[in-house]
Amino acid sequence: MRIDIITVLPELLKSPFEASILKRAIEKGIVEVHMHNLRDYTNLSYNQIDDYQFGGGAGMVMMIEPIDKCISALKEQRDYDEVIYMTPDGATLNQKIANSMSLLENVIILCGHYKGVDQRVRDAFITKEISIGDYVLSGGELGAAVLCDTIIRLIPGVLSNETSALTDTFQDDLLAPPVYTRPAEYKGMKVPEILLSGNFPKIEKWREDKAYERTEKLRPDLLK
Amino acid sequence: MRIDIITVLPELLKSPFEASILKRAIEKGIVEVHMHNLRDYTNLSYNQIDDYQFGGGAGMVMMIEPIDKCISALKEQRDYDEVIYMTPDGATLNQKIANSMSLLENVIILCGHYKGVDQRVRDAFITKEISIGDYVLSGGELGAAVLCDTIIRLIPGVLSNETSALTDTFQDDLLAPPVYTRPAEYKGMKVPEILLSGNFPKIEKWREDKAYERTEKLRPDLLK
Repeated sequence: MRIDIITVLPELLKSPFEASILKRAIEKGIVEVHMHNLRDYTNLSYNQIDDYQFGGGAGMVMMIEPIDKCISALKEQRDYDEVIYMTPDGATLNQKIANSMSLLENVIILCGHYKGVDQRVRDAFITKEISIGDYVLSGGELGAAVLCDTIIRLIPGVLSNETSALTDTFQDDLLAPPVYTRPAEYKGMKVPEILLSGNFPKIEKWREDKAYERTEKLRPDLLK
Repeated sequence: MRIDIITVLPELLKSPFEASILKRAIEKGIVEVHMHNLRDYTNLSYNQIDDYQFGGGAGMVMMIEPIDKCISALKEQRDYDEVIYMTPDGATLNQKIANSMSLLENVIILCGHYKGVDQRVRDAFITKEISIGDYVLSGGELGAAVLCDTIIRLIPGVLSNETSALTDTFQDDLLAPPVYTRPAEYKGMKVPEILLSGNFPKIEKWREDKAYERTEKLRPDLLK
């Protein structure tokens, strides 16, 4: 998979891609992630890429021309499955969307900033608008990092133990059951005895019951 | 506000706090953010902080002892309003939660990793569990960065123009209306005429209508 991220703040995105699972996926050659600084695609002075809103109001708007130039330059080099815009009013990201996006080959992610992009960018170039949740971020960069992380970890070969992703919360519309590790007792707090029993069919049953219980209590909406 | 982040990957969190609005908020002295490497709080060899699950199964679990030590050391120095655990089965972050959290003074954020933390950590130390959305990340670090960004930008004095945050999507349970900037025409695509009219009461009305229309079409759930 190849991901091209268009941003005014490439430096913000540096460390998330240089650590942990994203770093390993890139080093293994499973994913390529390229950052494109939008300011390299403007001819205006001070590398201007935003301007005041038509009609007045607080907050700057990202101009169409530099975005058009950057996306066009990328599209000349290869075909893209999706041109994604990170925006709080996009479709809310969930595990199903992450699963299906992990199968794509070439993706552009445009990070909004300030008051967002000129609406004509969305009308003309964007094929999918994604929000990571019902809250406002100072820019699309953290959203893009979150989207990349959820997708990339699902690509076969990225996680060292693939069964690990399959038992995650949400993969079966259930929250994960509680987990415990050593020591079996800590300051009087004990691990549930069943987990120390070695009776694996019973442990499996206990985990299923707990996952269901927890989902019913905390997120009944997931059970439909 | 003071935020203490407990993590096994402090390097992943570096750049988001060194750029843009978070950087400015820290430089202005409005927020202090401290990273604590959990590996500094273990006595085990190789700075081990995780271990296999009791009962078997893929994925490592973060042990209670180093977390207890780190949280206790912080609590000895000051009182905390909340000890937050980032986890996909926590309460889903939204703008209301962000608004109320932006009023807190001292907050600890614990980032889960691998298969999560020993359940006893959650039972004994955590006062609030937060998820940034219904998807799985490789760790709580990006979630913590997202949470910090949503909260910090709401603290008075952080954004240069405070009215900007008030007109954001979600602040009034409506999506934001479309925005446009120069040029008025680009490759045949025109800005809606009303925005060029200078008739501000009419523009205001148009924006309200568009915000409502967009919300009804894309997110009818927000209108209840």
